[in-house]
Amino acid sequence: MQSLSVYGDHRSGNCLKVKWVGDHLNIPYNWRETDVLTGQTRTAEFLAINPAGQVPTLIGEDGRIIAQSNAIMMYLASGSDLIPGDRFDQAKMLEWMFWEQYSHEPCIAVRRFKKAFLNQSDDDIDPELLAKGRRALGVMEMRLLSRDFFVGDKLSLADIALVAYTRMADEGGYNLDEFLNVRSWVARINQELDLDINEGRVVPLA
Amino acid sequence: MQSLSVYGDHRSGNCLKVKWVGDHLNIPYNWRETDVLTGQTRTAEFLAINPAGQVPTLIGEDGRIIAQSNAIMMYLASGSDLIPGDRFDQAKMLEWMFWEQYSHEPCIAVRRFKKAFLNQSDDDIDPELLAKGRRALGVMEMRLLSRDFFVGDKLSLADIALVAYTRMADEGGYNLDEFLNVRSWVARINQELDLDINEGRVVPLA
Repeated sequence: MQSLSVYGDHRSGNCLKVKWVGDHLNIPYNWRETDVLTGQTRTAEFLAINPAGQVPTLIGEDGRIIAQSNAIMMYLASGSDLIPGDRFDQAKMLEWMFWEQYSHEPCIAVRRFKKAFLNQSDDDIDPELLAKGRRALGVMEMRLLSRDFFVGDKLSLADIALVAYTRMADEGGYNLDEFLNVRSWVARINQELDLDINEGRVVPLA
Repeated sequence: MQSLSVYGDHRSGNCLKVKWVGDHLNIPYNWRETDVLTGQTRTAEFLAINPAGQVPTLIGEDGRIIAQSNAIMMYLASGSDLIPGDRFDQAKMLEWMFWEQYSHEPCIAVRRFKKAFLNQSDDDIDPELLAKGRRALGVMEMRLLSRDFFVGDKLSLADIALVAYTRMADEGGYNLDEFLNVRSWVARINQELDLDINEGRVVPLA
């Protein structure tokens, strides 16, 4: 029996999701820093672990491997308070997690990557990415009009999945001052998870 | 207590996923045909049900609403054989379901929609969609080299999620003769679910 290993890049929201769940639930793990920019997810050694060449990747205690940030979170949080016991609330949590990967991450995380990591200027980036990301933030703003968390009345994996890139959305050129419920919710989740507000950022906040 | 209602378009793979899980598990539901092409997901009546204007949408027995095909499947299949009992296998199933929504549907379903529904020619379509879709089929081909189902040794929601658009991939311009394990697996899942091979297709097979 070996302990859990998490392969991740500390600047990636998808990777940080896994780290935060482990930390919040006091699950011991070895963090294996894996730099996506210098090709460390393309080495023969890493591809033998995950042929898709993606982080985060988890190697479980029994040596078996799980990929996809939201699936790894479900594995780690199994049986914990981060997953609602009620069948409807659990499906609702998954609804937001699938929405995050389909309608949020492909705009907000991708635009941040292009700007903050590839140093692309706004003119180089498909303008649809800004519009779609703003629509996604608008959907979140509506959901948070009358609630403190995405599902039920406490922290769940849906909040962790969604906060990962929302809290760094400014690095992708989005302005959370336009989405005040979202901005308050980010502060709430940062506090719930006891996060350093600069964790994972390229440009530290003042 | 009302019975379940599923709002869906019968040509949409995402909607058919939900129908198939209901049928396979003998769960009674009312199918509310909702035509995405003529704007039936944009009416005031539908937007009151799902403000995102997307199908499938499920109204549960208690009147509560769930969106996102894969989350609805998880809700309907809760406690059934379509979800592995083992914690690792369950995470692995979710891994493939998240991969489907992130890396498969956005190419294979989207290219089919552009060709078969919007009648766009190949020249009008971003060539990246064909390349990315072929890579996704290649990933599936590798996974199926030595196994009959995506997770464990029997049918799970991962197979249902992935077969939905893979079985109609030819309508998006992909040729499954290049992916023989995938082609055999599609036939296997069609049989497991007792599907009419033409269900949902724009162009019936001979």
